[in-house]
Amino acid sequence: MAIQTIKWTNSAVIIIDQRKLPLTLKYVVCKDVKTLWAAIKTLTIRGAPALGVAAAFAVLLGLKDFKGKDRFAFEKFLDKLCVYVGSSRPTAVNLFNALTQMKSVLAGNPKASVEQLKILLKKEAFDIYNEDRIVCRQIGKNGSGLIKNGSRILTICNTGALVTVDYGTALGVMYSAKARGKRFKVYACETRPLLQGARLTTWELMRAGIDVTLITDSMAATLMRQGKIDMVMTGADRIALNGDTANKIGTYNLAVLARYHKIPFYVAAPLSTFDRKTKTGRDIPIEERDSKEITEIKGVRIAPRGVKTYNPAFDVTDHRLVKGIVTEKGIIYSSFKKHIRKFLD
Amino acid sequence: MAIQTIKWTNSAVIIIDQRKLPLTLKYVVCKDVKTLWAAIKTLTIRGAPALGVAAAFAVLLGLKDFKGKDRFAFEKFLDKLCVYVGSSRPTAVNLFNALTQMKSVLAGNPKASVEQLKILLKKEAFDIYNEDRIVCRQIGKNGSGLIKNGSRILTICNTGALVTVDYGTALGVMYSAKARGKRFKVYACETRPLLQGARLTTWELMRAGIDVTLITDSMAATLMRQGKIDMVMTGADRIALNGDTANKIGTYNLAVLARYHKIPFYVAAPLSTFDRKTKTGRDIPIEERDSKEITEIKGVRIAPRGVKTYNPAFDVTDHRLVKGIVTEKGIIYSSFKKHIRKFLD
Repeated sequence: MAIQTIKWTNSAVIIIDQRKLPLTLKYVVCKDVKTLWAAIKTLTIRGAPALGVAAAFAVLLGLKDFKGKDRFAFEKFLDKLCVYVGSSRPTAVNLFNALTQMKSVLAGNPKASVEQLKILLKKEAFDIYNEDRIVCRQIGKNGSGLIKNGSRILTICNTGALVTVDYGTALGVMYSAKARGKRFKVYACETRPLLQGARLTTWELMRAGIDVTLITDSMAATLMRQGKIDMVMTGADRIALNGDTANKIGTYNLAVLARYHKIPFYVAAPLSTFDRKTKTGRDIPIEERDSKEITEIKGVRIAPRGVKTYNPAFDVTDHRLVKGIVTEKGIIYSSFKKHIRKFLD
Repeated sequence: MAIQTIKWTNSAVIIIDQRKLPLTLKYVVCKDVKTLWAAIKTLTIRGAPALGVAAAFAVLLGLKDFKGKDRFAFEKFLDKLCVYVGSSRPTAVNLFNALTQMKSVLAGNPKASVEQLKILLKKEAFDIYNEDRIVCRQIGKNGSGLIKNGSRILTICNTGALVTVDYGTALGVMYSAKARGKRFKVYACETRPLLQGARLTTWELMRAGIDVTLITDSMAATLMRQGKIDMVMTGADRIALNGDTANKIGTYNLAVLARYHKIPFYVAAPLSTFDRKTKTGRDIPIEERDSKEITEIKGVRIAPRGVKTYNPAFDVTDHRLVKGIVTEKGIIYSSFKKHIRKFLD
């Protein structure tokens, strides 16, 4: 059932070309670090957890070019390599976290030889890869009980296999429910401006044999009013320590509508999404993106030249609108401040 | 300032080609009924009130082909002509209302000659045309007091000159406020699936020198949360006798968000929008439209082949979410049921 977004095989990294989706499923084989660097740069691969794994694998590819045995030279080589890999997507936090984790192998093994370090670094990269797989499946398992036979779930953006190694967060919960034999229905918001829902979520769910219906973002309220939605489930980009959740623009919209229509609103995210430095949603700056994302769709202009736009990349949902946060350790229900600290300890 | 969507000049009807907007302002000159019929059919002209005027003018163009003096033959000719004009857009209520109004001239003048009837029909068509202009300006005047200096208004779809003869309803209120020297800011929702906000509302407001910013529909909640919206103002397709309002999909979404953020929600519409046969919003059937409107944008495919969609053309906003309805007779505030009957009497 699952789609594998990124994998290591025969010393090459194979990734799905997400720019070609949903019309074509094409794989890109990256035999050297430059090819994978370009793939990250051009959004051939995307999504926070997937980028972490891609960065670790990029380091492994790059290390193939180091031939000597001198540890000092190796350390310098690795440093330079990590700077290079990081330059592919300077704003991706998971990518830099993975690079930091890779580099920590050297500090943790001060007496290891170059040969030993190469083995340890490979192990570290696979730990990052496997942890994503395990965490997503655990989130899926923990959340699957929320989905009943006949449930109708509304979701936004893409939170599936395509942003992780092969399973996803909010969609992972759905995959897990499906694997447990549950029958349910998903409504996917198209997710303007970049249409991840229309392009990727529908594609993933159709492939997995899950009943999915595509709507525009503006239709969510009407579906709720018609009694067609039993729960909203979304992912998260960053969660503050009080439970305020930053996610794709349009998520807060759904949370307010869900509250008005008395529909539970759930977030599914790994514990790594919680930011210990962020106390509340007010501390999260809202990134504004290029106007063209709104005025053009796939290169076709849809608005007058010179029109002003406002294009926040994500929004912040107040924790009071969130019924529960599904993590790999279990579901966190209200009194978020207290319970989140407990989960993170 | 105003754009003229449709006008009669030297025995031809001149209309704006709305398919070319917002990138090109092109006029189409219709010298015969066939050309105008094709323009209606191909959405070159659109919008309920504009279509009513177009139908009346189409009849005038068609009558030029009747050369005889026999009243019976004339009646048969007019009947056939009206059937033909109606076939250009079989679902447009205003178009058929205008045709009925035109035909009533014959019943109202049983002894008039063909020559006299031609004059009376021309007068009737211009009455329809002028009534739209007067009603829109009256709505504008009545609503303009709601807009203060510095107001920030959120709107959806296109409710301007392009759906009427030359002024509009919700946008008419803004034109009127602008003419009274008020300075304010408008946020236009792009209005998926057909993007009337992105394509037409921005174009109209920019042309009129009104400060407009384009957003995707999913961004409205965030703007409200940031305190950037003082009021929502939309048009209406049909209003029930209790004030429940059918309008472009996404309108109900905005009404719920406005209530949650304690922002007033106004509707601007002519009294002809009230449907005496519709007691509440529950009596309004929701038209579903072609899947392609969601899966393609300007012919570019954005979703997987074979994906299921749900595409309601409009939604119904509960009257309890509406602060006031701006009409040509004044603003109707709550206790809608009582006040609407009074306004309609």
